[in-house]
Amino acid sequence: MTLADLRTSHENTLEAAIKANAERTFHAHWPEAPSGKIYGETANDEALARFQSQLNSRFDRLGAAETWMGEEASPYGFDLGITYPAYTVDELVDRASSAQVAWQALTPVDRAAILVEALERGSKSFFEIGYATQHTTGQGFVMAFQASGPHAFDRALEATALGLAAQTSFTSNVMWTKPMGKTSVSIEKSYRLVPRGINLVIGCSTFPVWNTVPGMFAGLVTGNSVIVKPHPGSVYPIAIVVAVLRDVLVELGLDPNVVQLAVDTAAKPLALDLVHHPAVGIIDYTGGPVFGAIIERAASEHRKVVFTEKAGVNCVILDSTDDLDKAMENLAFSLTLYSGQMCTAPQNIFIAKNGMMAGGEPVSVEVVATKLREKIDSLVFNEKTGPGTLGAVQNPFTAARVAEAAALGFDVIRGSEPVAQPGFDGSRSMSPLVLKTDTSRSDVYTKEWFGPISFLIVTDSFDESLRQVTDSIRQHGALSSLVFTSNPESMQRAEDAIVSAGAPVAFNFNSFVWVNQSAAFSDFHGTGCTPAGNATFADWQFVTNRYNVVGVRKQA
Amino acid sequence: MTLADLRTSHENTLEAAIKANAERTFHAHWPEAPSGKIYGETANDEALARFQSQLNSRFDRLGAAETWMGEEASPYGFDLGITYPAYTVDELVDRASSAQVAWQALTPVDRAAILVEALERGSKSFFEIGYATQHTTGQGFVMAFQASGPHAFDRALEATALGLAAQTSFTSNVMWTKPMGKTSVSIEKSYRLVPRGINLVIGCSTFPVWNTVPGMFAGLVTGNSVIVKPHPGSVYPIAIVVAVLRDVLVELGLDPNVVQLAVDTAAKPLALDLVHHPAVGIIDYTGGPVFGAIIERAASEHRKVVFTEKAGVNCVILDSTDDLDKAMENLAFSLTLYSGQMCTAPQNIFIAKNGMMAGGEPVSVEVVATKLREKIDSLVFNEKTGPGTLGAVQNPFTAARVAEAAALGFDVIRGSEPVAQPGFDGSRSMSPLVLKTDTSRSDVYTKEWFGPISFLIVTDSFDESLRQVTDSIRQHGALSSLVFTSNPESMQRAEDAIVSAGAPVAFNFNSFVWVNQSAAFSDFHGTGCTPAGNATFADWQFVTNRYNVVGVRKQA
Repeated sequence: MTLADLRTSHENTLEAAIKANAERTFHAHWPEAPSGKIYGETANDEALARFQSQLNSRFDRLGAAETWMGEEASPYGFDLGITYPAYTVDELVDRASSAQVAWQALTPVDRAAILVEALERGSKSFFEIGYATQHTTGQGFVMAFQASGPHAFDRALEATALGLAAQTSFTSNVMWTKPMGKTSVSIEKSYRLVPRGINLVIGCSTFPVWNTVPGMFAGLVTGNSVIVKPHPGSVYPIAIVVAVLRDVLVELGLDPNVVQLAVDTAAKPLALDLVHHPAVGIIDYTGGPVFGAIIERAASEHRKVVFTEKAGVNCVILDSTDDLDKAMENLAFSLTLYSGQMCTAPQNIFIAKNGMMAGGEPVSVEVVATKLREKIDSLVFNEKTGPGTLGAVQNPFTAARVAEAAALGFDVIRGSEPVAQPGFDGSRSMSPLVLKTDTSRSDVYTKEWFGPISFLIVTDSFDESLRQVTDSIRQHGALSSLVFTSNPESMQRAEDAIVSAGAPVAFNFNSFVWVNQSAAFSDFHGTGCTPAGNATFADWQFVTNRYNVVGVRKQA
Repeated sequence: MTLADLRTSHENTLEAAIKANAERTFHAHWPEAPSGKIYGETANDEALARFQSQLNSRFDRLGAAETWMGEEASPYGFDLGITYPAYTVDELVDRASSAQVAWQALTPVDRAAILVEALERGSKSFFEIGYATQHTTGQGFVMAFQASGPHAFDRALEATALGLAAQTSFTSNVMWTKPMGKTSVSIEKSYRLVPRGINLVIGCSTFPVWNTVPGMFAGLVTGNSVIVKPHPGSVYPIAIVVAVLRDVLVELGLDPNVVQLAVDTAAKPLALDLVHHPAVGIIDYTGGPVFGAIIERAASEHRKVVFTEKAGVNCVILDSTDDLDKAMENLAFSLTLYSGQMCTAPQNIFIAKNGMMAGGEPVSVEVVATKLREKIDSLVFNEKTGPGTLGAVQNPFTAARVAEAAALGFDVIRGSEPVAQPGFDGSRSMSPLVLKTDTSRSDVYTKEWFGPISFLIVTDSFDESLRQVTDSIRQHGALSSLVFTSNPESMQRAEDAIVSAGAPVAFNFNSFVWVNQSAAFSDFHGTGCTPAGNATFADWQFVTNRYNVVGVRKQA
């Protein structure tokens, strides 16, 4: 395997991805179905066996180490018992600095080809990544397969292709000749792309691959060496991806420390020491807003580039719909999927006190509330698909938050109850809690209630609902918003107001697309202009801020 | 005049500029020669008359105001006596916010066409801009014409074209259809570009147009309204540009407050109040590092985007050359041009104690120093071109700094003396001071000595010179660097080391291109990765960080 082979093998993939980024029509390089027909009839069984044999043993695909650590526990009720090679901050940074020299000397095309090769190889492990994700995040298996497998890998390819497009958008060298009357002067120019330094990528517990690979691959394609610091509760899925990429680098005779895994524990975290290290020039962060603000401050004081996805409060407005059943089915699924643990899941649902219009007829708040409860019930109590849709709750704090919300004393539209996960008696699984309140309790609902917790909030009017939503976006950020209205004037007004406030907006979703989801190559994830964070997967900023252009001029 | 007319008129100009940005061969939309054949035989006389009638009167091209202020004084020895309409920060911000609504609703193509129209009209005033620049900055007339006229306008066009290219690099709307087995689901998507808010552009006294228009036009083409806050000592040149752009906006029925001039005085500066205003989202700053650091801190605390060009210490290494005369002529010109008041002018010239090789023969430090002095002398004492090349010193503090340097007690290679500017008896004009020292006095020469002050610094070896240069770049930043070497191995080593440190590097300049100059559409000005500042005219970051992309999805 040579670099030339890889360039040839992956040229079409990269070209198609670059084109998809521009056209933004449907594009998926890896099919999302966890199907044996696509990924091999034995892939699932082999992955399950590998997963089980990995439990309670060292993850030995990342090389040797003196210290091994790990503390992952499945939200389905058992400890994983996996340990990973652990290194000090200085060891990680020194090795990353050494590895970067040769990596940044490669052309962007070479780097992109290597990264696609790693993704293609990694895709052979989608089922294992799926089980690893299920038993660290609590996602149901199908979602875990999709979110950490094809959907995440498409996001990685998207960032890789965009980074390649940016870096090759102007010539790398030119003979510049300036006419000067009867004579001329020539200068031989070249333009060198200088990566900003080590790219630290700090992952989260709920989407350990999907939220990590965009920054990781954007950093790598632009010539930075990358240190991935996963959440100590969700290491296994991204460890597989890092290991595959290191294997490819070794086969090419490159230093595998171009990408490293920095494992830590909740008791002895590494993140801030890495953030403060002077050799770290770029930080990608997904996680809570408090620690996110600390990182942003540290980065800005030391001229580091930082991309954050923190948290927002996502809002819905109910105004009118052609089909109340379909609308509430769609919304119910968004509230139920992975128990509201997506950064894009709705939390606050605003409805005017007169209710909403459905098929031209007025329906009261109570009727809408009942309909929503029924739709959630039919999802949750479907024995075949309910448990898998809900998954388990990643973190005990999230479970405690559900109890806290239930104790607020608000009207309960739908109470949360334990849900059994077949085969996993100890799972931390529960159904969505939906509460009803009004705008007098904005002290409560304007904060993020991460998990299966939502509020139906009664307002005076559509206008007040819209004002509540835009105020919330400006103050607390948002990763999504959803409006049901069949009134074109209201739709335009809502679009203008919400877009100006900085959040993406969806209208009248009533089918197999949900507001929580964003599609690689088409939907930009995160707008970058609300308190929810400054990262967008993947706009130009997301790649071009990771390197600088330095000119070299020689008298010709 | 309609938008459609402008789109048609300027389509070729924008296409050619976009192509030039990619290919980076020689491209100049406006010829640099201040020639009547190009710009009209009467252009110079008319401009001089207009300049003279503008002196000691209100600059009435920006509309009415209750308060008028101005305190410009020509470095050639007289007060300009011009006053400009003055507004409060709240007035400026309120008007900018109102104007932005319609401006951001235009397409990027429309905005770019309007901006090119304004540049074309502004180019009719190149001669007046030249006189205005000469008598605020102190530049000689030819340089003033070029730097604030064609060269600056090319930089404005470069930023406009790059901003247009970025914003049109992906579709603005698409019907997205996802195949789902035998069925499919469609979503109608659009992508809205949301400017980050008001773009404040803070100018400097020495390059009031060249350093202002890149940020100004990048901000405008990406949908931001712009407030230009010039240095109170150099208002007139950029006021002409702002006035022309406002005229074009009015003719199109648009709010002229899309671009405003914020005039202040040294005693009552407006900059910090504008920086801190919550409606200001982007700040471009050219100026000193102390105030620059204050702005950077204020911006980072409030999630504002900031582009800075502060100051660096530019270095030269003398190792070997084929032709010592040509090399020293080139260097002498760089030290003399505009009395070292360019941010790209060399300051520290490193030479090994054994001297350098010239045409294969060793020459001593003393011989090189003498040659450099002679070349400066022949430039300065050329009665025809000397005064115009030197120009005048913008600021009394710069003149005082020359005296301070002369009093250091260092060996004097060339003393600075007053220079007469024909026709301007009171001009603050002086020739370059060149001092000799060694690395024991790094406490002195590692700081910026802005103005006609340079140091020939004797080191142990080429290696030590190179180490001095890279250390200096990392600690103090640089906007340029220049190496004379005919040794290919040394050249490669210097290139790698200096580029890694983050500064651009030029080799063996011996002709009509000087290290101080950077050519629009070809040379990136500023690398963005040294303490000298984070702005690059114009890389992708320079335009793409000024807006965000917000998605709108509708169930189809």
